[in-house]
Amino acid sequence: MMRVKCIVSYDGTRFSGYQVQPNKRTIQGEIEEALCKIHKGQLIKIHASGRTDAYVHAIGQVFHFDTHLAIPAEKWPYALNSLLPEDIVILDASNVNHDFHSRYHATAKEYRYRIHQQKMENVFTRNYSLHYPYKLDLDAIKQACTHLCGTHDFTSFCVAKTVVEDKVRTINSIELIEDGSEIIFCFNGNGFLYNMVRILVGTLLDVGQGLIDAEDIPTILNGRDRSLSGKTVPGHGLYLWKVYYDN
Amino acid sequence: MMRVKCIVSYDGTRFSGYQVQPNKRTIQGEIEEALCKIHKGQLIKIHASGRTDAYVHAIGQVFHFDTHLAIPAEKWPYALNSLLPEDIVILDASNVNHDFHSRYHATAKEYRYRIHQQKMENVFTRNYSLHYPYKLDLDAIKQACTHLCGTHDFTSFCVAKTVVEDKVRTINSIELIEDGSEIIFCFNGNGFLYNMVRILVGTLLDVGQGLIDAEDIPTILNGRDRSLSGKTVPGHGLYLWKVYYDN
Repeated sequence: MMRVKCIVSYDGTRFSGYQVQPNKRTIQGEIEEALCKIHKGQLIKIHASGRTDAYVHAIGQVFHFDTHLAIPAEKWPYALNSLLPEDIVILDASNVNHDFHSRYHATAKEYRYRIHQQKMENVFTRNYSLHYPYKLDLDAIKQACTHLCGTHDFTSFCVAKTVVEDKVRTINSIELIEDGSEIIFCFNGNGFLYNMVRILVGTLLDVGQGLIDAEDIPTILNGRDRSLSGKTVPGHGLYLWKVYYDN
Repeated sequence: MMRVKCIVSYDGTRFSGYQVQPNKRTIQGEIEEALCKIHKGQLIKIHASGRTDAYVHAIGQVFHFDTHLAIPAEKWPYALNSLLPEDIVILDASNVNHDFHSRYHATAKEYRYRIHQQKMENVFTRNYSLHYPYKLDLDAIKQACTHLCGTHDFTSFCVAKTVVEDKVRTINSIELIEDGSEIIFCFNGNGFLYNMVRILVGTLLDVGQGLIDAEDIPTILNGRDRSLSGKTVPGHGLYLWKVYYDN
C-alpha cells in the first residue's frame, strides 16, 4: 500500500461544499468517483485537511488516500485530472509515510478573503470576490487586526452552535493586500473554527465602516458570545490558500 | 426621443455570442428583453459597436438605443442591471446626439487576449485565459508584431469566407503585458475582420514556438491567403476591451 498526498485547487461556485452529501455535487464526491474509476470500482476514501463550505474556493487544499496501485507519484495529477470535472484540478502529488494525516498533521493554514470596491459589480469576479462598494477605514481595520492576532478563545467568532469544546486558536498573522480596487485579507493561523474566517472578515468590514470600534475587539473576544461580533460574509470570496506541515 | 449610449461588460462563457439568434442565449437578446420590460412590451432594438463570438468577453462594449422614456442617463445602468442576468453589467450610460452610431462612429477598438503559462490548467481562469504551457520566444513575437502594425491588407488574417470587400485595416499598436504566469496581447486598431484577433494571436504563438519565422510575416501579409497564417485560438481568452469615438 502507498499513501499519496495531493494538493488540489477548486472553483467552489458549482459545489455544495467539500464534504460528500447524498445527491449533492461535492469536491470529495467527485475526487472519490475519479479514484473509484482508476481502482476499477473499488471505493477509495480521501481525507482532507478540513471541509470547505458551498461556494468556497481552494488554491491549496490537501488530501491523502491509500492505494495498492503502483502509479508513480508524479503521474497521479494527470491520471486524476483526466477524469475530474474542469472545476477541480490536482496540482501536485507525492508519496508520504503511512502515518501522515492531512488533517491531524497540519500545523497551520492560510485562508484569504477577497472583496472588491468598484461601484458596479464585476461580471468576471462575481463568484470570486465579494462586491463591497462601501468606504472603509483601513487604518481602523489594521488596528482591529492587531487585537485579533495571537492566542484567544474565539467563541465570539464561530457559529453559535459549534460543538467543538476547545475554541482557543492562535492567529499568527492577518495581512491586508490592496490590489487596485480589491482588498485581500490573508489569515494565517493554527486552526480555524466553523465560519471563523467569514465572521472575522464581517467584523473587520463593520470596523472599517465605523459600526464596530477597533478598540472593542478585546471586549468582543472576552464576551465569548457570537452576537457581539459582526456579520458572516458570503462564501464566494473565501479561499483555502495553503496548508502547512512540518517539513 | 432620446438616444442613449451604454458601456456594457459581459462574461461570454454562457452565451452563444453577441448577436440575437433564435433559441440561443445571446447578449443582445438579454439586453433587448430587459429594455422590452422597461418599455412595457415595446421592442427596443440595440445597436452595438460590433458582434462578439461565443465565449468572447467584453469589458467595454458599446451600444445605443432610442427611447421615449424620460429616464435620466445615470439611472439607466441601475434600471437595466436590476433586470439583466448576472453575467451582463451595464457600467455607464449617457445621452448622445441623434446622429451618433455605436458602430459607424467608432474610430478605434482595443481587443485583449489572455494566455497563461502555468504547467496545470487554472480552475479560476479556465474560461477567461487560454492555457498555453509551451515555451515562447517573446523577442520573436515582438519582432513579428512590428511587421503586423501599420496599414495592411489582412486577407491572410481573417476567415477565408469573409465577404467584406475591403480587407485593408490599420493596427495602431500591439502591446504585450507580462503579468506573472500570464501574457496579455493588446491590439489597438481602426477595425478588425472576422476572427482577425484570434488568427493574429494564433500566428504570434506559432512564431513564439518557432513554427513560423517572424521575418516571414510580410510574405504572409502579401500572400493574401488564410492558409499562410497560423491557427485560430479559442474565443474564451478574448476581450473587447474598449471602443474609441471622437471626443
